[in-house]
Amino acid sequence: MKRVLVTGANGFVGRHALAPLLERGYEVHAAGLGPRPAFLPPSAQWHDTDLLTPAAREALLEAARPSHLLHFAWYAAHGLFWTSPENLRWVEASLALMRRFREAGGVRLVAAGSCAEYQVQEGACSEEETPCRPSTLYGVCKNAVQEILGAYSRATGLGSAWGRIFFLYGPSEHPDRLVASVIRALLEGRAARCTDGLQVRDFLHVEDVAAAFVALLDSDVTGPVNVASGRAVEVRTVVEAIARQLGRPELVELGALPTRPGEPPTITARTRRLEREVGFEPSLGMEEGLARTIESYRKESGTT
Amino acid sequence: MKRVLVTGANGFVGRHALAPLLERGYEVHAAGLGPRPAFLPPSAQWHDTDLLTPAAREALLEAARPSHLLHFAWYAAHGLFWTSPENLRWVEASLALMRRFREAGGVRLVAAGSCAEYQVQEGACSEEETPCRPSTLYGVCKNAVQEILGAYSRATGLGSAWGRIFFLYGPSEHPDRLVASVIRALLEGRAARCTDGLQVRDFLHVEDVAAAFVALLDSDVTGPVNVASGRAVEVRTVVEAIARQLGRPELVELGALPTRPGEPPTITARTRRLEREVGFEPSLGMEEGLARTIESYRKESGTT
Repeated sequence: MKRVLVTGANGFVGRHALAPLLERGYEVHAAGLGPRPAFLPPSAQWHDTDLLTPAAREALLEAARPSHLLHFAWYAAHGLFWTSPENLRWVEASLALMRRFREAGGVRLVAAGSCAEYQVQEGACSEEETPCRPSTLYGVCKNAVQEILGAYSRATGLGSAWGRIFFLYGPSEHPDRLVASVIRALLEGRAARCTDGLQVRDFLHVEDVAAAFVALLDSDVTGPVNVASGRAVEVRTVVEAIARQLGRPELVELGALPTRPGEPPTITARTRRLEREVGFEPSLGMEEGLARTIESYRKESGTT
Repeated sequence: MKRVLVTGANGFVGRHALAPLLERGYEVHAAGLGPRPAFLPPSAQWHDTDLLTPAAREALLEAARPSHLLHFAWYAAHGLFWTSPENLRWVEASLALMRRFREAGGVRLVAAGSCAEYQVQEGACSEEETPCRPSTLYGVCKNAVQEILGAYSRATGLGSAWGRIFFLYGPSEHPDRLVASVIRALLEGRAARCTDGLQVRDFLHVEDVAAAFVALLDSDVTGPVNVASGRAVEVRTVVEAIARQLGRPELVELGALPTRPGEPPTITARTRRLEREVGFEPSLGMEEGLARTIESYRKESGTT
């Protein structure tokens, strides 16, 4: 029986990993801070755990005795996470968790990284070719854990991989992030003030992001793997698709906000590893992914 | 009053940093595992501390209330440290110590790195130009702490630097390391079996290594700084100098041992930062450094 521990299981991505894990036959132990969330599948076990506390980590591993670990938990306060000293605490906690997981008999783990680990460049980021020279404390800390996990795995025989998340959207996203903020504005009949939207990004629906992590965990692939769609789109294309679906194109104000200084024009991914080695294909295209997201916000706001 | 906390103060390098710190007017708090060592200068305070224990780290910072931190402590078991999972525990402990040091009001810290962080190459390693692509778990972990410390310092305003140690020798070195093992063999009249000694390295006497760290701490220089002599010498030159000083050249057997597979032919350092920016010059040349080291082993073994 494969027993998987999912950290950050009440987070934006983690919550969507639980059902796919159960479908693949894993016994699922979901961990996060607070009481058992309502969305948890009934057959998943819940562990209310502060991962930053050594004793709580030990108790969690003792209770779950996982053979597999899917580690999503990290400091994620919107806007603050880029430079917060909390990133160091999550490096410490992540390394301790991974180390103790292996020492207690764990055999395979996958953790969540970020496109922020890469050096900004024009072309699509490649796991093999693009240098990792992060410009933020967050990116530096994520990449440091990735480097250590890789070397630790080679030294000990632990199986591990590292999913680098690019741009994601979907239900329960932070309301100030792009897709969520545009949908909410248009649903409420307010103007959606945007930048010119000429930035090129790689978007993937959060359910596909989570499913990709589950597929990666269930594979033998090692090292960093981009978790992305492999499709480069201008941000304005996404905004316009939302407006079209909601029938409110007149509320979109592209160019109303300045582009943030230093914002890279392009952040996109090569997805050969995810597609060929892991064998994962996204199930939701942009139109359907946005439709589902809009639907979830309609329900939430009571709009129909 | 500048109050400095020195970790690993009973280690090979740390012990030699205490007198230079006192000379520069620091109040010195020396920390390590075990009872107060006999070699400790009387005016230095001793803290028997297991840095791997969070509560012990907190108690140490509470007791020493340091404005400055010189962090040497790490896992250093000869031969084992390259691949040991203990490296992860020292990443965790080092980050926690640095973070709590700053949060408690610390203003400047310097920690010990290694030439093992660099990608192996023909020419001398440069802080600005040589890529960091470590081939060992030890090198990966040291470099990860360096990257995080740099980004953390930029995010918080902490002053910090990172001394990359190359090859060092001197009294109290591990007996199986090159200089110590040759001296001991010749003092005992045994053959010193060596490789061909054609490897080129940068050697610095441990007292100069420690003094360089103290100068770096007492400067405003930030980021990685090579702690080395800037002089490239063949290992056989060092062995032959020892034999000449001891008058036993016939006991040296160069070529008796095979070179370890994968051992890089050259590991040397550019020292512009140490010399020009920190303003440090080694006080001991190779001949004098070896003479002092031989003298200490003579005393230890009772040979005259």
